[in-house]
Amino acid sequence: MKSFRKELWFNTPMRLGFVNITAQVEDCLRDSGVKEGMALINAMHITASVFINDDEAGLHQDYAAWLEKLAPHEPIKQYRHNDTGEDNADAHIKRQVMGREVVVAITGGKLDFGPWEQIFYGEFDGRRKKRVLVKIIGE
Amino acid sequence: MKSFRKELWFNTPMRLGFVNITAQVEDCLRDSGVKEGMALINAMHITASVFINDDEAGLHQDYAAWLEKLAPHEPIKQYRHNDTGEDNADAHIKRQVMGREVVVAITGGKLDFGPWEQIFYGEFDGRRKKRVLVKIIGE
Amino acid sequence: MKSFRKELWFNTPMRLGFVNITAQVEDCLRDSGVKEGMALINAMHITASVFINDDEAGLHQDYAAWLEKLAPHEPIKQYRHNDTGEDNADAHIKRQVMGREVVVAITGGKLDFGPWEQIFYGEFDGRRKKRVLVKIIGE
Repeated sequence: MKSFRKELWFNTPMRLGFVNITAQVEDCLRDSGVKEGMALINAMHITASVFINDDEAGLHQDYAAWLEKLAPHEPIKQYRHNDTGEDNADAHIKRQVMGREVVVAITGGKLDFGPWEQIFYGEFDGRRKKRVLVKIIGE
Repeated sequence: MKSFRKELWFNTPMRLGFVNITAQVEDCLRDSGVKEGMALINAMHITASVFINDDEAGLHQDYAAWLEKLAPHEPIKQYRHNDTGEDNADAHIKRQVMGREVVVAITGGKLDFGPWEQIFYGEFDGRRKKRVLVKIIGE
Repeated sequence: MKSFRKELWFNTPMRLGFVNITAQVEDCLRDSGVKEGMALINAMHITASVFINDDEAGLHQDYAAWLEKLAPHEPIKQYRHNDTGEDNADAHIKRQVMGREVVVAITGGKLDFGPWEQIFYGEFDGRRKKRVLVKIIGE
């Protein structure tokens, strides 16, 4: 069994942002030499997500607006987590909705994807350096 | 390491629907010959889910009603994704809530499940042919 | 390829509760002898979750309050699943939001985690014995 590990780093300019990381994961897969197996891609921070959906700007606006309605950032004082001095309780909630990780099948040395699947880093408490882990196992 | 891959196809009669696919995944597992490992089952489309829960019709009605309240299909124009000519922004949101994929342990050649676990395809933009990927790795 | 399987049992005193299970999963990993691979940790019951987030009591209060607003337990009769004699439809919904499972990379014999990642059992219909499955594969 082969295994491969790489960290991808991000520093989004706004509190909330979505970054298409598909090409970076494909680079990892090529470097791994794995032809059949599975790739795990997960946020290493607990106020960020990795998810698979469409690379369409309007949809990303919809996600942002919908998540903000579901778990608003303001007022800060509505969350007990923020009593610790943090202001990111909403980001911990948004991350749960969008998910920590994806697992992707590897077949014939490629990410085994449907026609529109793209991998995104979802940031909900940005403006600082944060990481995603890519772990690949197989043969 | 053995690996196995199969696509399952669905065409649900309504926009929203839930299909129990446990028996089809068990067939894949038998065909794979894997006794110890993991199975990944994921929607290959970004307006559909694969999830594990109870095969109970009342619960499925509850999921449908709750998701519709959380991310209503109408009015179409409330979503920026629909400015592209699509009408399925709500389906992209519903899929995120219910999840893209499940990973299931394989032990002794069986899906290693608790008493009520069943695998479902969750469709949120149906009435056309769409796919689920089953990928199994192990020995 | 090595594989390892263990069930962890819980009986939470309240209907809803969060239990940090990171140390128990680390014990499983040590017992497995796996140095490179993946660990799957999943609820074996369909009204409970396994998720990764922060071990901070205020955040857990926020999750509980937010989930209760999103899918209230009362009134029982608002859910069709509860027409079967159950009273836990809300728990089936809460579990979908928080997720069934996590997959964690194993690198150098350790859970390959970011600085704050901790694994939790999330119970939404407690006060009885329920299980989590830990399945580890790798070398």
